[in-house]
Amino acid sequence: MAEKDSRRKSREKRKAGLRELLRVPGGERVDLSSYDTDSVPLGPGDKSAGKAATSRMGEHLADLQERLFAASTAGDRRRVLLVLQGMDTSGKGGTIKHVIGFCNPSGCRVRAFQAPTEQERAHHFLWRVEQSLPRPGELGIFDRSHYEDVLVARVRELAPREEIERRYDEINRFEKTLADDGTTVIKCFLHISYEEQRRRLLKRLDRPDKHWKFSPSDIDDRALWPAFQEAYSIALERCSTSYAPWYVIPSDHKWYRNWAVGRLLLEHLRELDPQYPKPDFDVAGCRGRLLAQ
Amino acid sequence: MAEKDSRRKSREKRKAGLRELLRVPGGERVDLSSYDTDSVPLGPGDKSAGKAATSRMGEHLADLQERLFAASTAGDRRRVLLVLQGMDTSGKGGTIKHVIGFCNPSGCRVRAFQAPTEQERAHHFLWRVEQSLPRPGELGIFDRSHYEDVLVARVRELAPREEIERRYDEINRFEKTLADDGTTVIKCFLHISYEEQRRRLLKRLDRPDKHWKFSPSDIDDRALWPAFQEAYSIALERCSTSYAPWYVIPSDHKWYRNWAVGRLLLEHLRELDPQYPKPDFDVAGCRGRLLAQ
Repeated sequence: MAEKDSRRKSREKRKAGLRELLRVPGGERVDLSSYDTDSVPLGPGDKSAGKAATSRMGEHLADLQERLFAASTAGDRRRVLLVLQGMDTSGKGGTIKHVIGFCNPSGCRVRAFQAPTEQERAHHFLWRVEQSLPRPGELGIFDRSHYEDVLVARVRELAPREEIERRYDEINRFEKTLADDGTTVIKCFLHISYEEQRRRLLKRLDRPDKHWKFSPSDIDDRALWPAFQEAYSIALERCSTSYAPWYVIPSDHKWYRNWAVGRLLLEHLRELDPQYPKPDFDVAGCRGRLLAQ
Repeated sequence: MAEKDSRRKSREKRKAGLRELLRVPGGERVDLSSYDTDSVPLGPGDKSAGKAATSRMGEHLADLQERLFAASTAGDRRRVLLVLQGMDTSGKGGTIKHVIGFCNPSGCRVRAFQAPTEQERAHHFLWRVEQSLPRPGELGIFDRSHYEDVLVARVRELAPREEIERRYDEINRFEKTLADDGTTVIKCFLHISYEEQRRRLLKRLDRPDKHWKFSPSDIDDRALWPAFQEAYSIALERCSTSYAPWYVIPSDHKWYRNWAVGRLLLEHLRELDPQYPKPDFDVAGCRGRLLAQ
């Protein structure tokens, strides 16, 4: 009976779309080991179907992105912020290349967050994030984000524990303000397994054209894998909210990761349903003036 | 004999690549009416060949862009700044969509310059430009630029004439500093005819999904066409320098414009010849550590 119930729930989730399926409920303890990293819960079932589906999605994404941008020229303040987080090699950069690559670069604002500079450290941790937010009509993409301040900062004790504890609420308030101001916040945790990370790091070492992506510090971070997973669990539990939910993306398969992030973005853009603005000028009159010129 | 000479010169130019062919000599009076807007001086000869050639160029652009970015992680400060200028509908946005669209969004910094805000006007006209420059390893793209301050500013007398006159030298000094600091500056004037602009503006009026790109003020600007062409001529004459040359791109054919700008970018990137950095860590040692983890 319980199994039947769970199957029904799962069917309902599928119907509700990928968002419902991958969304972290929030407020509940998150056990990341119970989330498959190599599953393909909805959508295409294999690599070639996945790549084809992602490619087909490209033009819909580009079309909706153009509409979002067009709407902003008539005062629509809505915009989208895609936050990508995950362990080294989880594919934050690859997702940007293969999914955001479909979009018009003019409407995208990509920002990669590294260890804060001296100037950034002198400010509140959200200061540098505020500088990088998408403007109305834009699609903003964060490759890492303010979550580093409760992830690596927690694991490596870069701030006093009570300050770290305060930050979760600060992040929630910050994201509530973004949402109220018309920003659709989509936060994706690209979830890979410990073994898959090893394979990818080894591949980086095997290929001279990938060496630049590798740093010995990646191995030091990897030694802290359980602590990082724990830090992610806490962030997902405390900061997956109705106005800025977290999604766990099974990311051992790059093609599935790309499809799933693209699909999430598409579902959100479709819901926003941005419209080309109606002209606020006399079209026929302008045509006449042009023909007379 | 003169004709033979001119044919020989033209052949030599072709061999030297698109750069030599389209580059404005600088320091000489520029007569824009002598530059064809619908010619296809080098490269593919028709639309379908042009589109195919541009598409093939895409992966080379993406490869070199990745190398440029990779090199920056090892201290290479080189970067590229592509400046796009042209009358309304000349295709600044289209070029970004169709050419820069091949590149990895993570390594691109696109900035569109509109009429300066109150804050921007309170600063020197180059201030907002400095905020928007590409970082080492990046490809920066300006949709309009500091040249607006000697173009629309000159035509509409937005500043005293003696200040406008001073700006050409200020721009040259600014661009010299950029070049000395490792920035390859590529400035493209997308050159269309008066008739082609009319066709494109009419098309924007005909299509509801293009209305947002139209503004009645475009017609007012168009009425000042000769003054704008003159302002462009002066800017090209005074600011096409060895360290930051101007190129006139025949832009009546969108497919040729895309191919030509892509090709210019490609020629410059090939000359920069950025290399993946050599590892500054012990590859075998790291592999061993990873396998033991």
